[in-house]
Amino acid sequence: MTRREFLFRAAAVGGSSLLLNTMNAWGMGIASTAHAPPPLSGSGKGKKVAILGAGLAGMTAAWELSKLGYQVEVLEARLFAGGRCQTARKGFSLQELGGESQSCRFDEGMYINHGPWRIPLDHQSTLYYTRQFEVPLEVMVNDNDHAWVYMEDAGAFSKKRLRQEQVKADMRGHVAELLAKSVQGRQLDAQLTADDQVLLLDYLAHEGALTTKDLVYRGRNGAGYAVNPGAGMNPGRLSDPLGFRELLASKVGKVYSAVQEFPMHATMFQPVGGMDRIAQAFAKRLGKKIRYGQEVQAIRQSPGKVGIKVKDTASGALSTVEADYVLCTIPLSVLRSIDTDFSDKFKAAMKGVSYAPVGKIGLQMKRRFWEEDDQIYGGHVLTDMKGINTISLPSTGWQQKKGVVLGYYHYALDAIEVSALTPAERAEFAVAAGEKIFPAYRDAFENAFSVAWHRVKYNLGGWAEWDEAGRKSAYPVLLEGEGRVLLAGEHLSYLTGWQAGAIESAWQQIEQLHRRASA
Amino acid sequence: MTRREFLFRAAAVGGSSLLLNTMNAWGMGIASTAHAPPPLSGSGKGKKVAILGAGLAGMTAAWELSKLGYQVEVLEARLFAGGRCQTARKGFSLQELGGESQSCRFDEGMYINHGPWRIPLDHQSTLYYTRQFEVPLEVMVNDNDHAWVYMEDAGAFSKKRLRQEQVKADMRGHVAELLAKSVQGRQLDAQLTADDQVLLLDYLAHEGALTTKDLVYRGRNGAGYAVNPGAGMNPGRLSDPLGFRELLASKVGKVYSAVQEFPMHATMFQPVGGMDRIAQAFAKRLGKKIRYGQEVQAIRQSPGKVGIKVKDTASGALSTVEADYVLCTIPLSVLRSIDTDFSDKFKAAMKGVSYAPVGKIGLQMKRRFWEEDDQIYGGHVLTDMKGINTISLPSTGWQQKKGVVLGYYHYALDAIEVSALTPAERAEFAVAAGEKIFPAYRDAFENAFSVAWHRVKYNLGGWAEWDEAGRKSAYPVLLEGEGRVLLAGEHLSYLTGWQAGAIESAWQQIEQLHRRASA
Repeated sequence: MTRREFLFRAAAVGGSSLLLNTMNAWGMGIASTAHAPPPLSGSGKGKKVAILGAGLAGMTAAWELSKLGYQVEVLEARLFAGGRCQTARKGFSLQELGGESQSCRFDEGMYINHGPWRIPLDHQSTLYYTRQFEVPLEVMVNDNDHAWVYMEDAGAFSKKRLRQEQVKADMRGHVAELLAKSVQGRQLDAQLTADDQVLLLDYLAHEGALTTKDLVYRGRNGAGYAVNPGAGMNPGRLSDPLGFRELLASKVGKVYSAVQEFPMHATMFQPVGGMDRIAQAFAKRLGKKIRYGQEVQAIRQSPGKVGIKVKDTASGALSTVEADYVLCTIPLSVLRSIDTDFSDKFKAAMKGVSYAPVGKIGLQMKRRFWEEDDQIYGGHVLTDMKGINTISLPSTGWQQKKGVVLGYYHYALDAIEVSALTPAERAEFAVAAGEKIFPAYRDAFENAFSVAWHRVKYNLGGWAEWDEAGRKSAYPVLLEGEGRVLLAGEHLSYLTGWQAGAIESAWQQIEQLHRRASA
Repeated sequence: MTRREFLFRAAAVGGSSLLLNTMNAWGMGIASTAHAPPPLSGSGKGKKVAILGAGLAGMTAAWELSKLGYQVEVLEARLFAGGRCQTARKGFSLQELGGESQSCRFDEGMYINHGPWRIPLDHQSTLYYTRQFEVPLEVMVNDNDHAWVYMEDAGAFSKKRLRQEQVKADMRGHVAELLAKSVQGRQLDAQLTADDQVLLLDYLAHEGALTTKDLVYRGRNGAGYAVNPGAGMNPGRLSDPLGFRELLASKVGKVYSAVQEFPMHATMFQPVGGMDRIAQAFAKRLGKKIRYGQEVQAIRQSPGKVGIKVKDTASGALSTVEADYVLCTIPLSVLRSIDTDFSDKFKAAMKGVSYAPVGKIGLQMKRRFWEEDDQIYGGHVLTDMKGINTISLPSTGWQQKKGVVLGYYHYALDAIEVSALTPAERAEFAVAAGEKIFPAYRDAFENAFSVAWHRVKYNLGGWAEWDEAGRKSAYPVLLEGEGRVLLAGEHLSYLTGWQAGAIESAWQQIEQLHRRASA
């Protein structure tokens, strides 16, 4: 049997996960587990699958299962598709549980992705569908060293705006100089050969931009100029390096990493026009397979069937949908309080994960002062200001008149506290913080749209947060599903909080569903 | 006198450069010298300026002087405007001196910016005009850690494809571990207080992603996964770190910097559709003020006048244009061989700079294999392969079918050698190199367009390259101009080779011209 034949056999027997394991075992390293839907053979003709939730997991499953011949019916409580894949633009409305109703008042063309807002290059599953469905992408500037860092508690640099590039450059220059001195002082003779010491000094001189003669850090143009070079008799003037001791004491060097952690790698993308372009691309193709305004009330299994009791949110009328299988993509935070006949073990597993409190606010600004005054084009302004975390600047509409700034993006306790405020109070909270960094902030502010995902009825949280114990005990139980009900969503992946988690979970679970249905 | 009044006085007396110096002296640090054209008062009415060359310097001057009332006439040898600000797309043709004629055969919508291709955020002068003229911009991915590095001579890593992110992460992890060990071994007690040592260890653990317990580098997810995390029971598997000694010996760590040097800072831009959109935006507004196909033959000054002898490139007819002042933006490499009555001193100064041999090639690929097979979206593949330097991937048309790859971008001797090849030979040279890195390269290749700027008639080089001696002696002479002839262009700036150099030089020289004309 050739390797290739063996791999086909492995795929046939154990599906793509066995295929993958086999390939890995052979050292045929492939970067990602899931660049494309599982290659399923056979047919789903004559079998009906009810899919609960028209988020990306549900729609992915519906699309792929339809192609295989299954009859699919997607039950969606909201009046639109996408789940958390939402974009707030003029007219988009949201009423949080127990909160005021907000209707987005942004100008035409302005928007905020208040749910997912980034597509990392490593998320080939998400990129599979943007390509298939021809959803135009643009670069989302996720890393901008020219943006400010503004710390209220950073010693000598407290309440000062620093360019990230300067902190990075000077911190690395000083550290490289220190290590170079150690080498020159013969302090590393035990660890490094003479040859390696030469190579290391060479690297450090490069890495830290040390002077070649005496291996000292005296600044570098990457840290920025005090006066940029220009025409005529202007060669520019470098900025003075920030002091090593002040930098260390400020801990501002820890705000960054030399290396972007996975999955924050560039190149980062966003759909042109808003993240919900992806949801819309699915929804358009699924058409009437999605039934909107259908709130799941109960799930009951009987031999060979599953019954879903749904309430029409407009009329209040109750009805029951019957199916051979159910793929439930409802977040566990919500599913936990739906009436089901799941086993105690399964119900306990559903409680084995917590959901992240997450808040975001979009602030429409009548002038792009971050570009015009500060030459910051996209990226994140990092801060230790309580409840703010990051102020992120739009990666679209370069040099135009207006823009929508992400005024905060917070989690955990910060998110809980700020979510207790009214929408107007949240806006004031965000503006009061932002104007400490950008003098033009308050003047430019026009209106806001905010979300606290843990207060959103059909979500009750930003994303699933597993701890180690939950991953060990509850997670495998949920992955198995129960009877004819299988689960899918970002919560059943190691990519929680990402659209790729939802899509890849759907791919994984439809493979399981198809195997069961074909058995 | 208030500060403000004083600054106005300084500007009136000494122009914007004195204003700037004064502000700098007062510590009123402003990032760049030139965010906007000089604020000139008075009028140029009744005075005629002949501008030689419709590149960005010439068109900037023409546009700004027109607004001030000057009668301007731009004499351009080519049949189109832009100078080096060119974009090759279907039908664009080029005949290098002594070379074959090339006509670009790219598909509709495909292009290569074979001249300038990047607009750094610090180049606020260029961005001033893209904003004024509403030239849409998109991000040019100038920094992509997911791209390959491929070195033929790098010890254990020779002829292997490495992700830049892995080299960066592992190199920095190992170095941080080494310095942490020095601190722990009490070898830095003389240089650092105990408190600072604690802070430094904390920083190093963060910077190098060291394990917190024993400060050892054991890999990090920023270096990439061998298997990406996904859905179900797949938490992913980290790649093994590259060895420190192998990394040192390979010198591959020196291919990158922790900090992008100015002006390579992100956010980098390119105009949507091609760099020549900027040239076209100027040309459209200048209309008939530009006369095309007018080759300058001679420059003669007489009291109060300048005469420019021009040849119509279509008819061969000679004529003379008279003006009160001339702004000459012709590259010095070309101007040196034009018949002028400049003084010996001025002529000598014109020879005090060399011009860079520079070559680029665009390769149309029928499939975006770098995205589809290798998940590389834009950025540069760095290599030590002779004559290649970088293979750069397009920052536009994400996920579409075809794309144009920059197959090489080289200078100096490499550029000279490769420019001796025919266009077809250059393409073969580039493809033969590229297929060592990308297996699909040759199969996907469709057609090519190349340029060797030192062989282009009206340029004779990529950009001016000043050495220190030239900057001291020749440069100030040229900045003064001679009589009623002033010079402008990237060569008269500290931003040589950049469009911003051309624009800011024009801004600087029209200020001088206006001062002389108003005297």
